[in-house]
Amino acid sequence: MGDLYVPLDHGRGGVAAQVASGLRDAVCSGRLAPGDRLPSSRDLAADLGVSRGVVVEAYEQLVAEGFLVSRVGSGTRVAPAATRDRAAPAGDQEPYHDYQSRATSPDLGHFPRERWLAALRHALTTIPSDALDYGDPGGIPELREELAGYLRRVRAADVDPANLIIVGGVAQGLSLVLHVLAERDGRPGRGDREGRADPEGRADRAGRFGRGGRLGLAVEDPTSHRQVPLLRRAGADLLPVPVDERGLDVAALRDRPARAVLVTPAHQYPTGVVLSPARRAALVEWAREADAIVLEDDYDAEFRFDRDPVGCLQGLAPDRVVLAGSVSKALAPGLRLGWVVAPPALAGAIRLARGEFDLGSPVIEQYALAGFLRTGGYDRHLRRMRREYRRRRDALVRALAEHLPEVRVRGIEAGLHACLDLPAGWDEGRVVATARELGLAVEAVGPMRFAPGRPAVAVGFSRLPVHRAAEAVRELKLRMSG
Amino acid sequence: MGDLYVPLDHGRGGVAAQVASGLRDAVCSGRLAPGDRLPSSRDLAADLGVSRGVVVEAYEQLVAEGFLVSRVGSGTRVAPAATRDRAAPAGDQEPYHDYQSRATSPDLGHFPRERWLAALRHALTTIPSDALDYGDPGGIPELREELAGYLRRVRAADVDPANLIIVGGVAQGLSLVLHVLAERDGRPGRGDREGRADPEGRADRAGRFGRGGRLGLAVEDPTSHRQVPLLRRAGADLLPVPVDERGLDVAALRDRPARAVLVTPAHQYPTGVVLSPARRAALVEWAREADAIVLEDDYDAEFRFDRDPVGCLQGLAPDRVVLAGSVSKALAPGLRLGWVVAPPALAGAIRLARGEFDLGSPVIEQYALAGFLRTGGYDRHLRRMRREYRRRRDALVRALAEHLPEVRVRGIEAGLHACLDLPAGWDEGRVVATARELGLAVEAVGPMRFAPGRPAVAVGFSRLPVHRAAEAVRELKLRMSG
Repeated sequence: MGDLYVPLDHGRGGVAAQVASGLRDAVCSGRLAPGDRLPSSRDLAADLGVSRGVVVEAYEQLVAEGFLVSRVGSGTRVAPAATRDRAAPAGDQEPYHDYQSRATSPDLGHFPRERWLAALRHALTTIPSDALDYGDPGGIPELREELAGYLRRVRAADVDPANLIIVGGVAQGLSLVLHVLAERDGRPGRGDREGRADPEGRADRAGRFGRGGRLGLAVEDPTSHRQVPLLRRAGADLLPVPVDERGLDVAALRDRPARAVLVTPAHQYPTGVVLSPARRAALVEWAREADAIVLEDDYDAEFRFDRDPVGCLQGLAPDRVVLAGSVSKALAPGLRLGWVVAPPALAGAIRLARGEFDLGSPVIEQYALAGFLRTGGYDRHLRRMRREYRRRRDALVRALAEHLPEVRVRGIEAGLHACLDLPAGWDEGRVVATARELGLAVEAVGPMRFAPGRPAVAVGFSRLPVHRAAEAVRELKLRMSG
Repeated sequence: MGDLYVPLDHGRGGVAAQVASGLRDAVCSGRLAPGDRLPSSRDLAADLGVSRGVVVEAYEQLVAEGFLVSRVGSGTRVAPAATRDRAAPAGDQEPYHDYQSRATSPDLGHFPRERWLAALRHALTTIPSDALDYGDPGGIPELREELAGYLRRVRAADVDPANLIIVGGVAQGLSLVLHVLAERDGRPGRGDREGRADPEGRADRAGRFGRGGRLGLAVEDPTSHRQVPLLRRAGADLLPVPVDERGLDVAALRDRPARAVLVTPAHQYPTGVVLSPARRAALVEWAREADAIVLEDDYDAEFRFDRDPVGCLQGLAPDRVVLAGSVSKALAPGLRLGWVVAPPALAGAIRLARGEFDLGSPVIEQYALAGFLRTGGYDRHLRRMRREYRRRRDALVRALAEHLPEVRVRGIEAGLHACLDLPAGWDEGRVVATARELGLAVEAVGPMRFAPGRPAVAVGFSRLPVHRAAEAVRELKLRMSG
């Protein structure tokens, strides 16, 4: 892979786009074949005489487009499916099909269409006309009230509706919180530090996102590789911290220069580990000592099967923890409806940022969700799905125990996926490819690791019918042995 | 106003929030009274020993909260309504009521609730379950197709669905485009310039928004004061360019170090001026010569009353113009549904940025809008509203001609507002306050100006019933003479 020719015009700007375009052409023309390994970003940057960041950006663009596949901190290759047929103009919209194979997605065949339509109808026939105007970027009061009550009741959260902001899902919630933290607490780095005298008077022209503040953000290792570009774009410099059987290693966290930490305490993604009570206390203690913020991604906490409910971390320390959640697992990701609960001053800044970014979320579905919560429809739907998912989980676990006893199954007390530790020598990529052929929603854990670890995969069971589980696992075993 | 005591703890961080909090306390405690003028940001910054940006941020926060009112480039005062009753914690959600008085809002009493509900029902009963999953952050293909056809037909735009991105309204569209342009073309400023060697390898950790690139953005003077914080937050340094009877003064634009310009060619906000054909050509020529991008905010172009349709600028130069529009005027702002059309490479980057910010817009209402367009419901609603708004506009213009002939009325060929040049000596603020008491949606033009100009107000006629026009104007005249 030494002869990678990428024509560049340094005077023209958009160098990363030029690099991406050159690599795309190389794939389309066949100079790079599926499976080919690309040079490290450092090497290619040196070859082309550009910064490493430019190459990283080009690679990220092509990964998003589906031309390349990449593991965190490791190699980048041409995607197996990247043929001439996949080649498309930059504006083309096709490559996001991979979301369909997320291990954490709910069974959308059970989306309560009629009851959701009834909630929409109720909203549309009762709200005043003014409610359809520009509204509060923090969300409609009715929904903030209902969600605050729900989170207090179900998640033992400590919530005042005034400190709850409606957002377009956990992704947007994290983006906003990180933007705000980076501008407030961010290391000066390339930006002006708040509060420092600025004799040239440039800071007021710089706005907020543009200040260039960066935030040291500790993240769990492994962590969802899909979230990494989002976290970086929002201003975070990632500081990986290992996860063990009791969750995030808080002792290791103490060595990191982090101003915030992002955790999934109820059911770690992808390992499925639950943060232990001692670790929860230690994490809060760290946050108080380090004057730091804990971001709690409560992504699938509605689904618990065998153990007592684990209250959210936010309830322990509402002054230190930001709780982010959504209806993506309980109802559907396509609704793009979520919430963020934050300490008062931070909540005010998040709401301001939301207003200055896009003026807030659509209102009709906010009213619909408020009604769905108020009438108990949300709780009933959750109870029904919890029973169904539990049956599916049990079927998968039974099938694995019977046909693949060499695989260790973890993290099945909650959520919509299990983590499978593979026997030594099994190739993650091959397991994933084979399982997907069999219709399983599987993701390799390798690309989610910052430090090397044993081979593992996350398997979603939400869409796996009970009668299919044994057959799918048996067939997987057969093909992996073949 | 020399004794403004604001306690600060410089070691604690969040200095802007501390300043905001101190000022809020001063208003609540009565030390600052409604109407009081605050020190200039430069003076207060010097007093407090902080950067001017910190004070600007604190002022912006308090303006957003309704405690202060401000004019671009001029003084800041305590809001007339800022009493102890208004005082509220930072997380409180109340202050956004001022959106209700936007001069450009449609009459939401005419929102087609039943037909919109039918479109939602059709979507919910026909879409496949997978459509409710994480989808393409650029929007569902069905809606992009319908909108591309609509924009080609109605706005003479040059659109390929692959280059159209669904966004949460024009505000979000502009935020995303500016973020992308600032990271691509931005001046190095505080950030690393793309393509420059980066021996320390820091750039790849910096992500995109965080690079701190700033974009020189020319804006119309006057321009909506509500958009200013959004533009700055997204990375723009504003470069005001005067608007005259033919629209933006393109000759003046040539002197500005702008990489992009934001214009409202079909119906300038707030003056109502239409960009002349010669200026349109000159603007495109400038963009080509300067290798710059024109952002076309097509915010109310659906409503034309007396003159031939003016095609959008984007149709003239699809390689240079980004077209942003929404359903906010045609249907309702609360739907938060809009679009951006951009040259292919930029469209790809915008879609990527959207995916890395929040994964895209809610899908059910996207399907509903696609169906509403496909079945002709959107066109029928627009035709009906155009007739109604024309009647209301005519009534307002007649009433002004009869009762306030000393007021010059401009910009009535299109849109939902007229611009009234006030006679010398009339006070904008008093006109606005009086008109609002009479239920008119009025906004002062002064706070939208960068350079001083004659007193003027923008008056919305969309919600002014025909039978109320004469009475309201007569009463305004009476009170202003009193």
